[in-house]
This record gives sequence, structure tokens and C-alpha cells, in this order.
Amino acid sequence: MIPIPTPDAAARADVRRRLDGKTKPRGSLGRLEELAVAVAGIQGTSRPDVQKKAVVVMAADHGVADEGVSAYPADVTRQMVLNFASGGAAVCVLARQAGADVVVVDMGCRVAPGGVLDRRLGPGTASITRGPAMSVDQARRGLEAGIEIARGLAAKGVRLIGLGDMGIGNTTSSSALAAAFLGASPEDVTGRGTGVDDAGWKRKVDAVRRALEVNRPDPSDGLGTLAKLGGFEIAGLAGVALGAAASRVPVVVDGLIATAAAFAAFKIAPALAGFLIPSHRSVERAHPALLEAMGLRPLFDLEMRLGEGTGAALAMHLVEASIRILDEMATFESAGVSDTGK
Amino acid sequence: MIPIPTPDAAARADVRRRLDGKTKPRGSLGRLEELAVAVAGIQGTSRPDVQKKAVVVMAADHGVADEGVSAYPADVTRQMVLNFASGGAAVCVLARQAGADVVVVDMGCRVAPGGVLDRRLGPGTASITRGPAMSVDQARRGLEAGIEIARGLAAKGVRLIGLGDMGIGNTTSSSALAAAFLGASPEDVTGRGTGVDDAGWKRKVDAVRRALEVNRPDPSDGLGTLAKLGGFEIAGLAGVALGAAASRVPVVVDGLIATAAAFAAFKIAPALAGFLIPSHRSVERAHPALLEAMGLRPLFDLEMRLGEGTGAALAMHLVEASIRILDEMATFESAGVSDTGK
Repeated sequence: MIPIPTPDAAARADVRRRLDGKTKPRGSLGRLEELAVAVAGIQGTSRPDVQKKAVVVMAADHGVADEGVSAYPADVTRQMVLNFASGGAAVCVLARQAGADVVVVDMGCRVAPGGVLDRRLGPGTASITRGPAMSVDQARRGLEAGIEIARGLAAKGVRLIGLGDMGIGNTTSSSALAAAFLGASPEDVTGRGTGVDDAGWKRKVDAVRRALEVNRPDPSDGLGTLAKLGGFEIAGLAGVALGAAASRVPVVVDGLIATAAAFAAFKIAPALAGFLIPSHRSVERAHPALLEAMGLRPLFDLEMRLGEGTGAALAMHLVEASIRILDEMATFESAGVSDTGK
Repeated sequence: MIPIPTPDAAARADVRRRLDGKTKPRGSLGRLEELAVAVAGIQGTSRPDVQKKAVVVMAADHGVADEGVSAYPADVTRQMVLNFASGGAAVCVLARQAGADVVVVDMGCRVAPGGVLDRRLGPGTASITRGPAMSVDQARRGLEAGIEIARGLAAKGVRLIGLGDMGIGNTTSSSALAAAFLGASPEDVTGRGTGVDDAGWKRKVDAVRRALEVNRPDPSDGLGTLAKLGGFEIAGLAGVALGAAASRVPVVVDGLIATAAAFAAFKIAPALAGFLIPSHRSVERAHPALLEAMGLRPLFDLEMRLGEGTGAALAMHLVEASIRILDEMATFESAGVSDTGK
């Protein structure tokens, strides 16, 4: 669908060498050093740059939300889009701190909130418990919308893109995607989302089970599985990940929903994995398993479960720290510090 | 020695209540929410403020450094102090990013580097393998110097203080403190510091064992144990922690050395624990156990082992994020978002 380049081995090696000249024992900044190396490989330069950053927050509604799987009514999706647009949501606060723009996209709320990017694929998906969430054509258009948004940001000089989501019901959809892709049981991949009680959790597990039974997804078919079990915002975010990677822009994943989207994209184009940067480990059960299956290890675990790209925004600080270390730290030579090569 | 106040329960409850009105499921920002509550309790206000921040980096030399326990020669302590002063060290880069000042203090390098705060207690400690590192009077003067520095920063409006260290040989000293305070075996609390090989590690373990045999520290005597096994920078940092707490300024601990210093201070004044904010979990073996014994859980683990306050500087971003969430996020009411109380 879209060509994904290869991380630049020479840039990685060059950054590794530059880090080894800095006034610190070799490797003593641990994963911060790995981050700088990864970003260099992705961007294809030994002078990586993450000054311009954006979190793309995509919102849509889910038919399954009517089946008692969420603690919140579906209209909260639209209400929260307005909250994103006016800068009052958590991701807005954290993105502002990280120096990242927030790009809000309506991929298909039941009622269009307006005032944000409109890439609507419809007024919410159909319930995954009764059939496919959307048609394959809609899923493809969602991917294309995301790809185009990511490419546009890259063209404007954005060098780091985070994924964020909003959609009442979307942890159910993401758990169904995780169950399908990982071959896991519904119980093992279903969490409490925004905070359902025991009865709500059982309804979610049951919804995931019925979604798998009704749709019989083929896990080797990324696009088809996405259409059957995903959401409009999930399709869009999968596209953002692909478009960013194609433009050599590192993609910071967030919690369960963003990671499910990245996973669908990874099934479509496995080379994507090399362009993903993990952020937090969410409370949601399926999240660590999805990350692990792409070879990613979360950078931190603050027991968060909000979504919106809040984990991605927090992780951007670490990515920027890694690049600042590379750019601003003195070398053993420049600072006149004895180097024993350790 | 110094009165430590009590965290303010009313301020904590008020911040908890304010967070519950924000547009997110209750508690969904996890430990970020706990951080805001903790800072409010420490500062004694439901409008906590961490705008002015400082990392206090204290440096000193260690007699034990001559016994083959480090991969670097002792003169690197002095060289690195000059690197701190000129802004090229890792902690300078990360503190700059966090908006924190770096306060560099010479607590007793072998040769005075000059150009930084001078609170020298002597030209490095005596080797802990042959007797006490310093006299009890020196340890007390170190504490007092740290207390006075922290109080001075608080008086200048600093509302968040991080602890940082520099001292070739100081992981050996800190491991000895951990062994004494925790009643642990030298093997279990001794790591590889800046990167010693197997033979170096065995020398470190042996040095810790001899230090315990020769000094016979009484773990219930915080000051005495600090004098026997500590370092001038460790005594100073213990004082910074006490002085900050006395001024209701939260103290962000760093890796092994800063945590050993905080632990010594905690043995002197157990109420200190409520004023400490953990940062990372270091690669050093004794670090998690020291944190746990004070009831602290690290916020992240990036496999770092550099010291200097680098972990503390990174954690300041999270502390600031927690306060920004409190200050800048919309409420259900202000944003017109449906609240189900979940």
C-alpha cells in the first residue's frame, strides 16, 4: 500500500559513536541513548531533530458503545472533541508542555462536532457484535486519510508524531483487534476502559467474544481485520503511523487504542515496527502484549489509562531529552575529562 | 536536628477533589495524579507550584577510590565539576530542558576545582576500608551546609529540588551505607558503578565488606553511620533533603548515591520520607531496596546509571506535568462534558 523505508544503519552507528564520546560512562544513560540511536536511524541522519512535534488525536464513535461496554455515553466523544479543540483536555496540557501541536480529526463522530479537521467516514461504526464495523473500502479510506495527514505534517517540518484517540467504546474494539491479531482469549485482552464495573467488564468480554464469532477475522489480513473489528479513528491512526514512517518521521505510540491501530498497520506493512517508539505501559490488559508482539518495550508505567495521546505526549519529553544529550553534551575531549573507554 | 513538618492532609484532599472534576475518568492519569496530590501535601497548599526548580549537584572525593573500585581515576571528580560549571554535563542538559537551575557544590574534592559553591569539608574522605570516612563533626557540618543551601534556594522561590552527586568511588561508599542500613550482604548491594569489570566488582564487594568490619556501624545511628561509611557529598545531600523538607519543598531523589544520602537523612529524621519524590530506578543493585525501605516506588526505569541528578532532572518533567494537569485542564462543568462519576 505504501512503501516503508529502512532505518539508516550508518546514521545509527554514527550516533552511537557520538554518544560514546560524551562525558559519561559508555551506555550509562541506558534507554535514553537507545532512543537517540533509534530516532537517527528512522530520520536517516546522524543529526536527528525533533523540534517540531505533533500529536494527532483522532475521534470517532462506535456502534458497540450502545451495548453497555462503557461507563460514559457515546455523546462524550463529540463533547471531548470540543474540549480538545479548546485546549482543555489532558492531552492538550501535556502536548503544550512537550512543545507539540495537537491536530484533532473527526473521523466519524455520531454528530459532527465541527471546528476540527473533518475526515468523517460516517456517523460512527456499526456494532462489531453484529457484523463488520465498516466496509473494507471505508477502512482503506481511513488509512489514506491518516497517511495524507502525516505526510502533510512531515511536509510542514514536523519531525515527531504521536498517536492519540478518542471514542467511547474503543477499548472494546481494540480488545477485539488484540484478540484477533494475537489469538488471545477475550478475557485476557479485555480491561476496564474508562472504568466499568464487574458487570460492565463481563459485557465487554461478551461483546469481544461475539465480535470474533460473527466476524471470523483472518489475523493475517490486516486491512480486513481492521474493517471488521476496528473503528474509524483506529483506521485513521493506522494510516498516520504508515504515513509518518513513509516520511521517516518517528511515531510515538500511546496506550491500547493507538497501539491496536499501530498493530493493524504493522500487519499491513511489517517494516513499520522499526519506526515506532513506545511510550507508556497502560493499565489495559492487551496493551503490553501488543507492544511485545511488535518488539517494543514501554518506556515507563505510570498506571495511566486515559488515552488521547497522553502517554505519547509524556514520552516526547524523553525523546527530546535523548536528542538534546546528543546535541548539547560536552565530549571527553572538549571538556578535558579523562576517558578510560569504559 | 531540624524540624520536619507534616504533609498537609487538607491540601491533599482538596487537590484530589479538584483532579476528580477534570475531564477524564477518575484516577485515569494514575501516578501523575498521585504526584500532584503529594506535592500539594508537601507544599501545604491546594495550589501547588513547581515553576522554580533546582538540581543541587554536590561533588567530593573518596579515599576508597585508590583501591581499584572505579573505572575512572579520582581526578575525574574535579574535571566533572568544571564540566558541570560550564554546562556540558548530562545533568546540565537535562536540567536545562526541565527548566531547572543546576547548583554545583564542592563538598571536598581532592583538589579544589574552584568556580563553584565552596563548602569543602576536606580534600576527600579517608578510605572507609581503614576507618571512618570522616569525623562525626564533619558529617554534621556537611548536613548543615546542605540544610543551609536548601533553605537559601527555598527563600529564593525554588519549589522543587533535585539531588545530584559526583564523586569517583561513591557507589562503593553508597553500597556500604546500603549494606549497613538494610542489613544486606555486600554482594547484594554492590553494583558496577561507572562500569568496572568482574575483578573490579570483586574489589568493590571486598571494600564494602572490610568497611563494615572495620567500622562496625550502628544502623540505628544515622549520623554515625553516615560519618563512618559516607562521603562529603553524601552528607551534604542528606542535608539538602532535610533542609528542603523543613522548607516544605519536595525533594526529587536520583539514583543510588542520592538515595543513600536521602536514606541517611531519613534515619536521622524519619518524617523526611513524606517529602521525597522518587525518580528513576537505577541499574545499581542497592537502589530499589533503599527506595522500598522508605516506601518509595520509582516512577520509571530507563536503565540509567550515570548519577549527577540526571534521573531527578528527567522526573521533574513528570512532576511539572502533574501540576499543569491540575492548573490547566478543563473540568466536566467548564467544558460541558457529561460526568458519570466513574
